[in-house]
Amino acid sequence: MANTLEGIAASKGIAFAKAFVLEQPEMTIEKKEITNQDSEINRFKEAVNSSKEELQIIKDKTLKEMGEDKAEIFSAHLLVLEDPEIIDGVSSKIKEDSVNAEHAMKEISDMYVTMFEGMDNDYMKERASDIRDVSQRILLHLLGVENTSLAAIQEETVVIAEDLTPSDTAQLDLNYVLGFATDIGGRTSHSAIMARSMEIPAVVGTKEATKAVSTGDTVIIDGMEGHVLVNPEQTVVDSYKEKQAEYIRQKEEWAKLVNEKSITTDEHQVELAANIGTPNDLDGVLSNGAEGIGLYRTEFLYMGRNELPSEEEQFEAYKTVLERMEGKPVVIRTLDVGGDKELPYLNLPHELNPFLGFRAIRLCLEEKDMFRTQLRALLRASAFGNLKIMFPMVATLEEFREAKSMVDDVRKDLINEGQAVAEKVEIGIMVEIPSTAAIADLFAKEVDFFSIGTNDLIQYTLAADRMSEKVSHLYQPYHPAILRLVKNVIEAAHKEGKWAGMCGEMAGEETAVPLLLGLGLDEFSMSATSVLPARSQVRSLSKQDTELLSEEAIQLPTSKEVAELVEKKGFIVS
Amino acid sequence: MANTLEGIAASKGIAFAKAFVLEQPEMTIEKKEITNQDSEINRFKEAVNSSKEELQIIKDKTLKEMGEDKAEIFSAHLLVLEDPEIIDGVSSKIKEDSVNAEHAMKEISDMYVTMFEGMDNDYMKERASDIRDVSQRILLHLLGVENTSLAAIQEETVVIAEDLTPSDTAQLDLNYVLGFATDIGGRTSHSAIMARSMEIPAVVGTKEATKAVSTGDTVIIDGMEGHVLVNPEQTVVDSYKEKQAEYIRQKEEWAKLVNEKSITTDEHQVELAANIGTPNDLDGVLSNGAEGIGLYRTEFLYMGRNELPSEEEQFEAYKTVLERMEGKPVVIRTLDVGGDKELPYLNLPHELNPFLGFRAIRLCLEEKDMFRTQLRALLRASAFGNLKIMFPMVATLEEFREAKSMVDDVRKDLINEGQAVAEKVEIGIMVEIPSTAAIADLFAKEVDFFSIGTNDLIQYTLAADRMSEKVSHLYQPYHPAILRLVKNVIEAAHKEGKWAGMCGEMAGEETAVPLLLGLGLDEFSMSATSVLPARSQVRSLSKQDTELLSEEAIQLPTSKEVAELVEKKGFIVS
Repeated sequence: MANTLEGIAASKGIAFAKAFVLEQPEMTIEKKEITNQDSEINRFKEAVNSSKEELQIIKDKTLKEMGEDKAEIFSAHLLVLEDPEIIDGVSSKIKEDSVNAEHAMKEISDMYVTMFEGMDNDYMKERASDIRDVSQRILLHLLGVENTSLAAIQEETVVIAEDLTPSDTAQLDLNYVLGFATDIGGRTSHSAIMARSMEIPAVVGTKEATKAVSTGDTVIIDGMEGHVLVNPEQTVVDSYKEKQAEYIRQKEEWAKLVNEKSITTDEHQVELAANIGTPNDLDGVLSNGAEGIGLYRTEFLYMGRNELPSEEEQFEAYKTVLERMEGKPVVIRTLDVGGDKELPYLNLPHELNPFLGFRAIRLCLEEKDMFRTQLRALLRASAFGNLKIMFPMVATLEEFREAKSMVDDVRKDLINEGQAVAEKVEIGIMVEIPSTAAIADLFAKEVDFFSIGTNDLIQYTLAADRMSEKVSHLYQPYHPAILRLVKNVIEAAHKEGKWAGMCGEMAGEETAVPLLLGLGLDEFSMSATSVLPARSQVRSLSKQDTELLSEEAIQLPTSKEVAELVEKKGFIVS
Repeated sequence: MANTLEGIAASKGIAFAKAFVLEQPEMTIEKKEITNQDSEINRFKEAVNSSKEELQIIKDKTLKEMGEDKAEIFSAHLLVLEDPEIIDGVSSKIKEDSVNAEHAMKEISDMYVTMFEGMDNDYMKERASDIRDVSQRILLHLLGVENTSLAAIQEETVVIAEDLTPSDTAQLDLNYVLGFATDIGGRTSHSAIMARSMEIPAVVGTKEATKAVSTGDTVIIDGMEGHVLVNPEQTVVDSYKEKQAEYIRQKEEWAKLVNEKSITTDEHQVELAANIGTPNDLDGVLSNGAEGIGLYRTEFLYMGRNELPSEEEQFEAYKTVLERMEGKPVVIRTLDVGGDKELPYLNLPHELNPFLGFRAIRLCLEEKDMFRTQLRALLRASAFGNLKIMFPMVATLEEFREAKSMVDDVRKDLINEGQAVAEKVEIGIMVEIPSTAAIADLFAKEVDFFSIGTNDLIQYTLAADRMSEKVSHLYQPYHPAILRLVKNVIEAAHKEGKWAGMCGEMAGEETAVPLLLGLGLDEFSMSATSVLPARSQVRSLSKQDTELLSEEAIQLPTSKEVAELVEKKGFIVS
């Protein structure tokens, strides 16, 4: 029976194929009292070892077939298996509470998953996925349940699943899997991010795909509109075939823009840059023609380990990125963690509202030795490319001044030591706190650049945690207050001859690009796969038209009316 | 040996006397495994009953000697003793975990105290104090430990304590206790609030008063500057005697202003109103000459109970306040709870960042029946005075429009039912979210008034939880962004012929009053005891001078410089 499901458009493109519905292995976990703790701990350790062997095999296979990038997920999983907080935690629980290994594993894993999922950071959220995934694997071994293998798929298929874990996505053979749809997840969930990076169409958050679809049904995944069509009629199939051909043609057009400028029809040029988390992301950055790195999140260097990374280790990572970018601008953000017990070796306080807490620059200005090490590594790396240093979560001028003066001191130290340091390293800030956006004019006199972090800026300006489902309707990128603050920041920068960029989710959105262009944004930093479509959009627009658009938009009273205006006026090209 | 401690000035005035250092009863609580759960539960119930008898006696005594207001604390304590979540919680814990009553009591109490302490609301924080206090009482009974009695003090004394609980403060005989100093606490902790309401000098947060002072030492409490002087020299004593005489003279001057206007030397009149939590607070409001109620928090009606308050019950409370205010303006704020499991009967989700969560108007627009009941009670009460309704936590125009249209519907229903409703009831909003302050011009076209809630506005604008000690340095009322937002709100209101008030802590602060006057604030709502000093300050200032001051202040880059400017220019009169 024909049926259409609505979900969240997570990755562009259109896929047609027979469905493969991924069954969740049946796992009922009961709490049982056990008497022989030691033998239960041994049973647990055996399951951990089996999981380890299995992961090693998957990792080697992935490395061979899909490259280092994808294999890294399994290195992360192997690290979870060696994480004493988790593994020893389970053993302790078995011993102290006299409970079965399954129950102990589930409790410990749920605790960490909840903790990491709540964090304001894609990498932290991926860590939650990692733990969930590894814990699932251990549980399967403990329960002796067979796992359904996605790797066995040998014909053209769209996958329908409740959710896809990193283990799942890494097993997808892209010769056969043309797209997927999931019950749960949002635009920033692991499965959505992976779909965009694998460049296959995906719809997430359909709520009921696994119920509405059976294996063998014919399914269309429309990753543009967020539709999943089950057993569609021939006329529908035909129209989607056309749409697909059009999309493929468009992608070919986009690919031609790799070495082109990001320039409007009336010759206004902007920079389209990419956000990265590790040097491994550079391949995608270069193949998608990004003109720089607008945000290098350095958190990853500090995570999944038991002590701070050394100066040398950081220097190597920063140097690699700068060298491979061959003189193109690279904005590296200093450490943005905290607000919750994220780095076990830092021993941070538990906070009631971690998003409003002790994190990022607030933490770095107190943990000065740690911060100084990062600044040393950054300035040493500056000799190898076009480095710009950016401080996150700055709320007051005093904070910026203190951080800036630490950079100056470190520079002097390095020069005294005879180390090479670039003559000019721009020092800027993330604008992600309303107070900073409101007094951007005062900051503009002292910083070299701004980069607007919209994820946090929206969350704080509307006082709505974007992780909280109950208030997610208030996470409004086009709320007039956000547009006004963005305008204020850009104008303040330009008045002092500085540049203003944006590195939040919003920078790559089709609705946002014309508005931001009109407001005068100089640099747009986004996920690498968004760069070419954005460039195509920029090249189709006239700066003058976008100025008129944003002038009109900024007068509107609600976010909804702004989005409608952009659409109505025809600024969305695809 | 002479010694001076620095703390937080919590309540004005100067006290001299011998010190009485309150010893914390020695209580070591060990976790013990018990075998006979039933007899342990009986032991616990006996301790609860003894506590109940004791509290009843204290309550009766307090009622007779200090009035209904103070006695209410013990009604709240008696309610805790009947709270099934707490009392049955302890019994269940004893039964299920086979632990001793002391351990179970401590665990359950700590859990609730942590939960309530974190909440953004003085009443919730008092509830944490109530639970801590009652749990301490039960533990003393369980352990058979004698409590040091403050009630036994029979000579002029200043009390030095780690902290003062509600039980402690209610036992203070103000004929003998002239002031107090504590190790812990801030300006909004229970002890500080009580000191201001009892009008005795107090310094809190000295960190070490109980260590630095011994019973019998001569002590000066300087509640103006936040100093505690131990065994001061005679010259110091003499200068403080003068200061004390001056303060007493000043208080006599303030008292003369009860029926005077709040008017500047150049004849600009403003309204000085009071914040209240229950109709019981009205005595203080009237005796301090407040010109209205700028904020009636209705949360208290919903708390410490097992079901929603009825329309009738709410109507009676609102009517009482309106009648006793005899036509003076009364701004009643609709329910501001949520963001954590605050009202057990509402079953709210647990949130990672409750301050950025599902609360206040967000909750009311979803729990429409509950909200409608409150609106019905409010509009029915409007026939008995000068009511203005205010919605908290409004972030978007859509929210205001939806809430406003519910008021219109309720009004129609009531009129159809033949109920009396005032012809004109102003409908306004709290401005406490940055987005709302930023687009105050758009709101001003639709609301009747604004009241700026600085506690939250500062917290969100600087993205700093004011409960979190690690970031409390970022809770900056004079940050230039705050001053600009306040200015924006006031100007937007005036442009549309509406009025703008403020009901956060800031409205009564000596540093803020001249700045706010200069920015054009129409209504200042504060704790009742601040009204007369603020009136005195207003009457000493010229509007024109304050305008020049605020123009200058708003250009300054940091909070610190603003506060220094106000002081340097001589705007702080006391």
